[in-house]
Amino acid sequence: MECINTIKGIREYLKPYMLQDKSIGFVPTMGYLHKGHGSLIEKAAKENDIVVVSIFVNPTQFGPNEDFEKYPRDLEGDLTVAKEAGATVVFAPVASEMYVEDKKTQVVVSDLTDKLCGASRPGHFQGVTTVVTKLFNIVKANKAYFGKKDAQQLAVIQKMVQDLNMDIEIIECPIIREEDGLALSSRNVYLSEEERQEALVLSQGLFSTKERIKQGERDCVQLKNELIELINTKPLSNIDYVNFVDVNTLEDINIIDDKVLIALAVKFGNTRLIDNITVEV
Amino acid sequence: MECINTIKGIREYLKPYMLQDKSIGFVPTMGYLHKGHGSLIEKAAKENDIVVVSIFVNPTQFGPNEDFEKYPRDLEGDLTVAKEAGATVVFAPVASEMYVEDKKTQVVVSDLTDKLCGASRPGHFQGVTTVVTKLFNIVKANKAYFGKKDAQQLAVIQKMVQDLNMDIEIIECPIIREEDGLALSSRNVYLSEEERQEALVLSQGLFSTKERIKQGERDCVQLKNELIELINTKPLSNIDYVNFVDVNTLEDINIIDDKVLIALAVKFGNTRLIDNITVEV
Repeated sequence: MECINTIKGIREYLKPYMLQDKSIGFVPTMGYLHKGHGSLIEKAAKENDIVVVSIFVNPTQFGPNEDFEKYPRDLEGDLTVAKEAGATVVFAPVASEMYVEDKKTQVVVSDLTDKLCGASRPGHFQGVTTVVTKLFNIVKANKAYFGKKDAQQLAVIQKMVQDLNMDIEIIECPIIREEDGLALSSRNVYLSEEERQEALVLSQGLFSTKERIKQGERDCVQLKNELIELINTKPLSNIDYVNFVDVNTLEDINIIDDKVLIALAVKFGNTRLIDNITVEV
Repeated sequence: MECINTIKGIREYLKPYMLQDKSIGFVPTMGYLHKGHGSLIEKAAKENDIVVVSIFVNPTQFGPNEDFEKYPRDLEGDLTVAKEAGATVVFAPVASEMYVEDKKTQVVVSDLTDKLCGASRPGHFQGVTTVVTKLFNIVKANKAYFGKKDAQQLAVIQKMVQDLNMDIEIIECPIIREEDGLALSSRNVYLSEEERQEALVLSQGLFSTKERIKQGERDCVQLKNELIELINTKPLSNIDYVNFVDVNTLEDINIIDDKVLIALAVKFGNTRLIDNITVEV
């Protein structure tokens, strides 16, 4: 498996495949790959002739007080995970390869990006949509694979692809969890043992909310209060948001009559974790 | 020469050419084609295996008080011009084919779009960059052809292509003029005979400014005042802007030491005309 660092290099690598009409699956990542990424790569490998994995810790999607500098990096480990999961080639550019100094262009998705994580991370999704557009233009894949763990990111990217007529299919992939329920995240390495133990309340709370809905509760205000109360029993927790929303528009839902995305972001110590579940009734 | 109205249709039409690695030249237009467009299509036909011409009066680049409704349209005439100039296929979608009702995504180029025409047409360039991105994603051409008459549009699109790693080459084409010097524009049909006569001052002024520079004048304040004075001798004229700027950044230039773009927008009656010239010293 090759690892290519330049835009010109990856384009030249992929060109012969395109001319042979080979299907290209694409898994964009920020590296520090875990089993969640592995599952995306495996799915891409099953569904396509070749799989491109990008590894790029994108500076423009981090806020000034966020964890860009200390975001975990391990290129060597990543190459092993990518290869074992079935990647054909890794694209791992440095920031100066991806951005010119006087960049002036942004891809902006409105409304969807103001809510949930967008409210507490201003500019984050603009950084995401812009870099994803750039990566799509570089790789020109047929399908791109994103995990449902970043449910808002998925909704934003789906809208962008539709609005800009990008010729790529976005494949939603399930959240991968530890055996005890914690959603996999590169940021989990930040957690102390105590924080990690308390963080289990997130998946437990989401699963028990799902049960409550299955049992007939439809009132999101009631369900939300219960979920918040449960999370607040953990002394190290600090809730950013707990929201019951439409899976596509991300607008708040009051009474569940079809499908609901329950999304939350909670800090444990300095580590902000997100998790979510979609429930159909 | 085929005329295709759907995105799916044009993609299917172009796919076999792409798989054969045929080069695709693209000329995006708002229709009402004149010799200026014709020259772009001819150049594209010389340099590529096939040529796609799009005809789409893009509503999102017109302001609320601008001329979207009355913008001249003549699809039949356009097809004749396109065919004679060497187009392989015309893509002529309706607005509902190009835009979903709940569109939320914009491609935004900052700085470059605040100046010149951007200052008096807020939102215009956002409409342009967004629709051009969409068209590029649909047609996937190797080269796209733009006239230098819209010098700011050209600078904005060049920047967008660079920043978003769009895999397309932007080809700048010279301004085509009537024999008396008037720059060709679909909007020239709006001009009364008197307005049209007075409008000749624009090209005459630009050419005489070029002469002044060739003779040694380097002070843009001086040159600008002379040019404004000349235009103001025409009673029907109403200057929007006359600017001496850097051809790439569009920043004002005070003293010419290399290359200058002299760009202007002037209304004659209700018709807003633009023209420009680039002078190297």
